[in-house]
Amino acid sequence: MTAIDLAGRVLAAEAARYTAMGWMRGTSGNLSVVSGRDPLRLVVTVSGRDKGELSEQDVVLIDEHGAAVPDQPHPERVPSAEAGLHGRIAAVSGAGAVVHVHALAPVLAAERWPAGVVLREQEMLKGFGRAAHDDVVTIPVVPNSQDMRVLGEAFAAGFRPDTPALIVARHGVYVWGDDLHQARHRLECLEWLLRFAVESGFDARERRAG
Amino acid sequence: MTAIDLAGRVLAAEAARYTAMGWMRGTSGNLSVVSGRDPLRLVVTVSGRDKGELSEQDVVLIDEHGAAVPDQPHPERVPSAEAGLHGRIAAVSGAGAVVHVHALAPVLAAERWPAGVVLREQEMLKGFGRAAHDDVVTIPVVPNSQDMRVLGEAFAAGFRPDTPALIVARHGVYVWGDDLHQARHRLECLEWLLRFAVESGFDARERRAG
Amino acid sequence: MTAIDLAGRVLAAEAARYTAMGWMRGTSGNLSVVSGRDPLRLVVTVSGRDKGELSEQDVVLIDEHGAAVPDQPHPERVPSAEAGLHGRIAAVSGAGAVVHVHALAPVLAAERWPAGVVLREQEMLKGFGRAAHDDVVTIPVVPNSQDMRVLGEAFAAGFRPDTPALIVARHGVYVWGDDLHQARHRLECLEWLLRFAVESGFDARERRAG
Amino acid sequence: MTAIDLAGRVLAAEAARYTAMGWMRGTSGNLSVVSGRDPLRLVVTVSGRDKGELSEQDVVLIDEHGAAVPDQPHPERVPSAEAGLHGRIAAVSGAGAVVHVHALAPVLAAERWPAGVVLREQEMLKGFGRAAHDDVVTIPVVPNSQDMRVLGEAFAAGFRPDTPALIVARHGVYVWGDDLHQARHRLECLEWLLRFAVESGFDARERRAG
Repeated sequence: MTAIDLAGRVLAAEAARYTAMGWMRGTSGNLSVVSGRDPLRLVVTVSGRDKGELSEQDVVLIDEHGAAVPDQPHPERVPSAEAGLHGRIAAVSGAGAVVHVHALAPVLAAERWPAGVVLREQEMLKGFGRAAHDDVVTIPVVPNSQDMRVLGEAFAAGFRPDTPALIVARHGVYVWGDDLHQARHRLECLEWLLRFAVESGFDARERRAG
Repeated sequence: MTAIDLAGRVLAAEAARYTAMGWMRGTSGNLSVVSGRDPLRLVVTVSGRDKGELSEQDVVLIDEHGAAVPDQPHPERVPSAEAGLHGRIAAVSGAGAVVHVHALAPVLAAERWPAGVVLREQEMLKGFGRAAHDDVVTIPVVPNSQDMRVLGEAFAAGFRPDTPALIVARHGVYVWGDDLHQARHRLECLEWLLRFAVESGFDARERRAG
Repeated sequence: MTAIDLAGRVLAAEAARYTAMGWMRGTSGNLSVVSGRDPLRLVVTVSGRDKGELSEQDVVLIDEHGAAVPDQPHPERVPSAEAGLHGRIAAVSGAGAVVHVHALAPVLAAERWPAGVVLREQEMLKGFGRAAHDDVVTIPVVPNSQDMRVLGEAFAAGFRPDTPALIVARHGVYVWGDDLHQARHRLECLEWLLRFAVESGFDARERRAG
Repeated sequence: MTAIDLAGRVLAAEAARYTAMGWMRGTSGNLSVVSGRDPLRLVVTVSGRDKGELSEQDVVLIDEHGAAVPDQPHPERVPSAEAGLHGRIAAVSGAGAVVHVHALAPVLAAERWPAGVVLREQEMLKGFGRAAHDDVVTIPVVPNSQDMRVLGEAFAAGFRPDTPALIVARHGVYVWGDDLHQARHRLECLEWLLRFAVESGFDARERRAG
């Protein structure tokens, strides 16, 4: 089994998990892990497959621009169209894994707070890598686009090393971490925080201004 | 194993999947695949069975009007009452598979927007076969009826080849595609979009008018 | 295996199913099947067990008043406190199975419409044993009580043979049918209808008055 | 297998159950059982592990202050930071098991009723160890803190032997009982009651004042 196949097996299991949570409907979403840094290489899920039914074969090795590199067992496999944003996020943030899912709560929150979703005074922020107190976390929201360079620029313009997530309005959320496990934990905690924000019905800014 | 049994096995697995999502309560909903075009023939789930407990036997071969055809191993099996609408949809749209489920979000959306549910500027529209930008998608809503000819006429009157779904008010949703997999992916994405519409609490028309 | 054990096995499987749906939290809820008519006998789940972990042993044979009958392998087992209402429902309605669960939607609906929840013009009413059109279904709501005779009288006072359900306010719902399968299907469809009523936010009376 | 390993196995299974319900996102939450009374000793889940993937090894023996005791097979394992509150709750209440999860409904309820969540006239209160009628249950709410002594004092100040739960605002809920089974049942029923309170949209005080 090649290293790519091994990464594919792990990505397939993670995708099945998110699918069961309703966060990867149809063929939506994509997951990646960094396999090399110089030059940057990521193993990313291929385009167009049911994310609950991936096999270890359903991945492809890409460069930082999201293009399949020629030197791999199956260069003909087609990476997700969003692979370019995975590459940009990994390059800018130094993350080892990037997950992009279509959970509902992030998109609902972005619809309500299109300038960014403010979170503070929440224990669950620790699971996102921030402090539970005396810390203001703003999850950036960028407009949707089909051009990964446009999304990449919008991401980079708002990037802060301490905020490992990006909501793309009317689309979904990206979360990253040192590895898939950390990215998962951050995603699960962020989704909870955004669901809380949406269900409690008001913004942390309104509530805790001062 | 006959071709009908084989289709039955696939339909049973798909029905179990939808049941687990809460979209086929009790014996509600029905699924079909086209098995021939000239004349049109569909394999459709039988009436009255628990949709989480179907076996490969719980299907029947029908014509475009939803009637069981005589030339099959078990012509005595009773197709779903809604088989006639499956036949009509397959005949008009050219679809290879039609799924009808009682998910809650489509019926809630139809209650709110009885003249049709307008969706636009959503990445998930790509999973429904449309564009994420500069495209206005109206999911048709028709009044419920027990007469499949009435429903069939209402469907045909509003049919557009680029919109593979129909909501029957106070009833459920039909989605179709080239095969069961494509129909599933379209359904999963549409359900997400309609849940977003209902939970975000306003109409795409109001929000993005212009 | 005795007939009681056999009934116990089926009731345990059904209880595990409802537990997975979140409808039998902790040790709440109880299920019964009629095992004899003259005199009336029911096999009912015992009191105080986790409803997701029942074994075939966790049932007891009761009379129409909910008392354990002496002539059974384990007369020392304690029936659910609510067994008396199971007996009364089976006696009055002629049902072969009664299910009582603590689903949230029925209790939310009863809180909103304490005089009874009106349902009409819904396809899902067919799964409850009624008509989808030109039929007004009122699910009776009775106040909660710890006295099964009080609940039984309230049930009997509002009983209609065509309405196989009863909501006990701030408590849960009873649904019955010829057998456990029919009771399950009716419950699943009723829960959907009540969730629709609660989420759509208005009463069928207001909406379709005329 | 040591007694600690055995407790670890049971705690891991319970944590996996809560994870599947979405109540232990990422590495959040922790569970404990009392293993000795004089002096007080608890087996508690370790810090920082995915709560859906615990093994029997992922526990540590602590004293009433939450510190790992030296006399155990693996004193180097790090207890959860919140172990001190587990110890305090077990010491004050006499409970045999304490569960702490990040379910959403308790935190939503605390946001709405920060002075305590009042519950009354609910059958499900019996599953929480209280009466369904003529009883007013107030679930205490305390502000979040990273100092377990502060949380412990706030808990002790509001402790009533008949109310086996504590909500930590913008954080999560603690529930306890004689054993893990009883704690689970109380938690499941309390979560239902708090979800009802949040979804029905008004306080028991407003509704049933008298």
